Amino acid sequence: MSDNLLSNINNPTDLRLLDEAQLTQVAQELRDFIIDIVAVKEGHLGASLGVVELTIALHYVFNTPEDLLIWDVGHQAYGHKILTGRRENFHTNRQIGGISGFPKRSESIYDAFGVGHSSTSISAALGMAIASNLKGDFNKQHIAVIGDASIASGMAFEGLNHAGVTDANLLVILNDNAIGIDPSVGALKQYLTAVKEGKNPRQNNMIKSLNFDYSGPIDGHDIFAVIKELKRLQKIKGPKFLHIITTKGKGLQQAEDDQVKYHAPGKFDATTGEIHIKSEENLPPKYQDVFGLTVLDLARKNEKIIGITPAMPSGSSLKFMMEAFPKRAFDVGIAEQHAVTLAAGMATQGMVVFCNIYSTFLQRGYDQVIHDVALQNLPVIFCLDRAGLVGEDGATHHGVFDLAYLRCIPNMIVYAPMNEIALQNILYTAQLGLNHPIAIRYPRGRGVIADWQTQHLGNYQKIEIGKSICIKEGSKVAVLSNGTIGNNVTLAIAKINAPETIAHYDFSFVKPLDKNSLQTIFTKFTTIITIEDSTVKGGFGSAILEFASENNYTSKITTLGIPDEFIEHGTVAELQQYCKIDVKSLEILFSNY
Amino acid sequence: MSDNLLSNINNPTDLRLLDEAQLTQVAQELRDFIIDIVAVKEGHLGASLGVVELTIALHYVFNTPEDLLIWDVGHQAYGHKILTGRRENFHTNRQIGGISGFPKRSESIYDAFGVGHSSTSISAALGMAIASNLKGDFNKQHIAVIGDASIASGMAFEGLNHAGVTDANLLVILNDNAIGIDPSVGALKQYLTAVKEGKNPRQNNMIKSLNFDYSGPIDGHDIFAVIKELKRLQKIKGPKFLHIITTKGKGLQQAEDDQVKYHAPGKFDATTGEIHIKSEENLPPKYQDVFGLTVLDLARKNEKIIGITPAMPSGSSLKFMMEAFPKRAFDVGIAEQHAVTLAAGMATQGMVVFCNIYSTFLQRGYDQVIHDVALQNLPVIFCLDRAGLVGEDGATHHGVFDLAYLRCIPNMIVYAPMNEIALQNILYTAQLGLNHPIAIRYPRGRGVIADWQTQHLGNYQKIEIGKSICIKEGSKVAVLSNGTIGNNVTLAIAKINAPETIAHYDFSFVKPLDKNSLQTIFTKFTTIITIEDSTVKGGFGSAILEFASENNYTSKITTLGIPDEFIEHGTVAELQQYCKIDVKSLEILFSNY
Repeated sequence: MSDNLLSNINNPTDLRLLDEAQLTQVAQELRDFIIDIVAVKEGHLGASLGVVELTIALHYVFNTPEDLLIWDVGHQAYGHKILTGRRENFHTNRQIGGISGFPKRSESIYDAFGVGHSSTSISAALGMAIASNLKGDFNKQHIAVIGDASIASGMAFEGLNHAGVTDANLLVILNDNAIGIDPSVGALKQYLTAVKEGKNPRQNNMIKSLNFDYSGPIDGHDIFAVIKELKRLQKIKGPKFLHIITTKGKGLQQAEDDQVKYHAPGKFDATTGEIHIKSEENLPPKYQDVFGLTVLDLARKNEKIIGITPAMPSGSSLKFMMEAFPKRAFDVGIAEQHAVTLAAGMATQGMVVFCNIYSTFLQRGYDQVIHDVALQNLPVIFCLDRAGLVGEDGATHHGVFDLAYLRCIPNMIVYAPMNEIALQNILYTAQLGLNHPIAIRYPRGRGVIADWQTQHLGNYQKIEIGKSICIKEGSKVAVLSNGTIGNNVTLAIAKINAPETIAHYDFSFVKPLDKNSLQTIFTKFTTIITIEDSTVKGGFGSAILEFASENNYTSKITTLGIPDEFIEHGTVAELQQYCKIDVKSLEILFSNY
Repeated sequence: MSDNLLSNINNPTDLRLLDEAQLTQVAQELRDFIIDIVAVKEGHLGASLGVVELTIALHYVFNTPEDLLIWDVGHQAYGHKILTGRRENFHTNRQIGGISGFPKRSESIYDAFGVGHSSTSISAALGMAIASNLKGDFNKQHIAVIGDASIASGMAFEGLNHAGVTDANLLVILNDNAIGIDPSVGALKQYLTAVKEGKNPRQNNMIKSLNFDYSGPIDGHDIFAVIKELKRLQKIKGPKFLHIITTKGKGLQQAEDDQVKYHAPGKFDATTGEIHIKSEENLPPKYQDVFGLTVLDLARKNEKIIGITPAMPSGSSLKFMMEAFPKRAFDVGIAEQHAVTLAAGMATQGMVVFCNIYSTFLQRGYDQVIHDVALQNLPVIFCLDRAGLVGEDGATHHGVFDLAYLRCIPNMIVYAPMNEIALQNILYTAQLGLNHPIAIRYPRGRGVIADWQTQHLGNYQKIEIGKSICIKEGSKVAVLSNGTIGNNVTLAIAKINAPETIAHYDFSFVKPLDKNSLQTIFTKFTTIITIEDSTVKGGFGSAILEFASENNYTSKITTLGIPDEFIEHGTVAELQQYCKIDVKSLEILFSNY
């Protein structure tokens, strides 16, 4: 093997000094570098392996960062980061204080637009391209690289529909690998597959119908073909569309063979590709599995139950129901708006719909929650996965706004279970029929009850809507917690010297509030602490303040939760500490009373 | 003329008893009936006139309400309402206690799905169709009637993309009249126009690419052709798509000739079509025009200014800038998600972007506001038109959630001007550069300063961000108002016997709050009233409660605003009265102190 080329590439200018013939070696080295680091440090693997050649070709052909390059979602941008000055820091990926797992404007001039949620790249690149035209800069290139799962989302269509009537220097590159995190779905996917297989004549294709200069499909792993085509497109003005075919996980056989698992495989053997299996014995279940297994169990007994996920069958564990009841559980693709209103339509016909959307992605369906569900008071059951702090995915993915944005909507019930049993029971209760929509929010990751599956799954208890629970009596201070963060409260109380001073109430229902219990609490306690893993502005604590004000209580209320700033990436424990809602911070706080 | 047929049609069963040959007479009578009532009672005219034949044909062919019929947006559903039991009540349209201007489930069994916001019909109808399949009802029909402006929105694409891979009995009818409220835009519109003009071979069309059984285009005013085609489609299983061509305003010459004006023309002469001009002399300007004229003026002086509207150039008055600077002001169609991220992309390149979106429609771009704008702290200037109670459009359109859903977002400045001068000045201030995104919310309709345009337009004063204004000193009670509802406070104080008791502060900034002023107010006053035309849950009042709690103030705070329920339609004055934020209610409240 010749000298390592990658170690001398500190920015794309270095790359451009190489002969084109050397780029296959760079590709190999870049692929190895990604595999070696991600194998040890964890992260998103498959997507970046799939675009190694494209990444090199883009920086080789275009004059980045003058030419503006946007990676949709950004899971695939590891190669981009490594080639643009972050090779030495790449081992800090997704760690607190380290580089972000996604492109981020504040991190690098080469990251033209921060990403994380899908399907934003075309709109952003078009905005930049129009700005360039207005500034008289007609040679600047604006490039959006978007996957076939992301381009099927409505927002991407809106961007294409607008771009097609402009003269913007926009190049949309469709990275078509037939998979997002899970395999792509929908009619557009079928169409693209037909194009790939030569069953659709290019000249009549859908993209051309939207006024784009379409080229492709070409093999995205043939770096010379990609470079040649990019050089051709570089000279063409106006909106252009290049369709390339790639393989997710390219270059690591296991990653190619099991693309879902190797999307973010955790630690693995860089040589063999074998994933290091962590012992899961005696660990509590993931909340995702509590949802997935409970809904599966309920669906067996209640044939009106339907499950919906926008593109997260694995992540949400709705896959269990999809496997058992393929006609009653739907992956609708990256289409949160559609998912919500589809659920509303089903609910009008008496179906019991569990619509599972990550908290941060329900922001995409917010209008539909208000206008199609809550206004009509349809009893859709929203399951908001990955609520609260999500950890290493960082600022783009924390599900911390949901209590504020849902609590203001009339007719909504808003609930966050404190543990697996409560989650199971609220799912059970909801499908009995509530006559209202409900949002059930729960975090990413594991719960607190190791024997949940063997001892509790299926032993349902109906939950009284709006009822709080006194976890622990106390003499001086009442702590009101919402959701799983309440477990930190329990742990903190157990550590202090005078636990008898602290009372702890589980207010799983942010709406409706348990007013009877609050009357009692406010009558007894002059010091109240609320805690949530949601924004204190407008969240659960704010609801308690409203109650106190309406009822003329003057107890001192301290509201703990996510402060008014975007929280970066790190482990959940680190981020809880930053927000002062970790066990240690609570212990110190409680000790003061 | 023969006997009136319409007066004997109390439901679609009556209609189906007629001979097909009689339906042209029914069409004429229905058109006349709509014109006669809307001419006097006001409302949306053009859309319903355009679908008279389609409406009759649908109810004649299909077995409504067993077959489920959804009108996208619903502006076009007057004929539907008249044929389905609401002929006698039609004169109460959009009045308080009267029928809604939109289809509404609680109003009629024939209104299969409540509408108002665009592009929901395909998702809702698909949900119903899937539910029917699961219930074993394979003959039920599920029909979505959607316009060419609405089908270009991303949500509609998401619905089509999913429907195309199902076997649902879904019939999508594209009512193609090349206009929404303003003329349709975008590449899809150009494509559809080419189809209409025979320039695209049908067999390769875009809709067929999504696996739909496409038929058309046919003349939507040829009732016999429409009936024939509906009967044919009735027998075909799976997703079907019928493309019909209609003329908005059909049957009233002026409405056909000026489709934008006759979308909702106000009162007019039913015979001649002539609109009754109201004298606008000495009336204060509409806030829309304050926005439109100010941005036009600012754009003349600052070439970095860009304007964006998703499909509301007339409604928002961005049309003034679009006419003067067509390359710098954009109607992107019904595409709020795209509009927001397009603005973000432009802002990265140093452009000063005024992104004007109705408050209720920004719910569609909520994720983009958080993820693409606020997280990157891009200084996009959001202008939220029709904030607060909008009046006759009712529950689907009130812009009352914005303070709650925006206040929780880090980096956002949230402002509501009290009058035209404040609106003008904040627009001026924002374009000077704030280093933060700002949301400026203002209501539908007229302000309070009659000579604004002649005496104030262009006389800009920079506003200090986060500063409140003491409108009036007082001795006993401090009223803190946000936005134009503050004018009700002023009027109410003027009416009471002891106006010296009431102090009035304009807290236009909900975020950042004027903490210095609040310290002074809370130190001086033990009784505080907040007032806003936004939800009290999570809104401005809630922000004041948070401040008081953080700073250990125990003044009694009363929060006035929109209660926790969906507010129906009526005049703004009637709805303010309902919410107890009208002048009279405030007068009574203030008199108690």
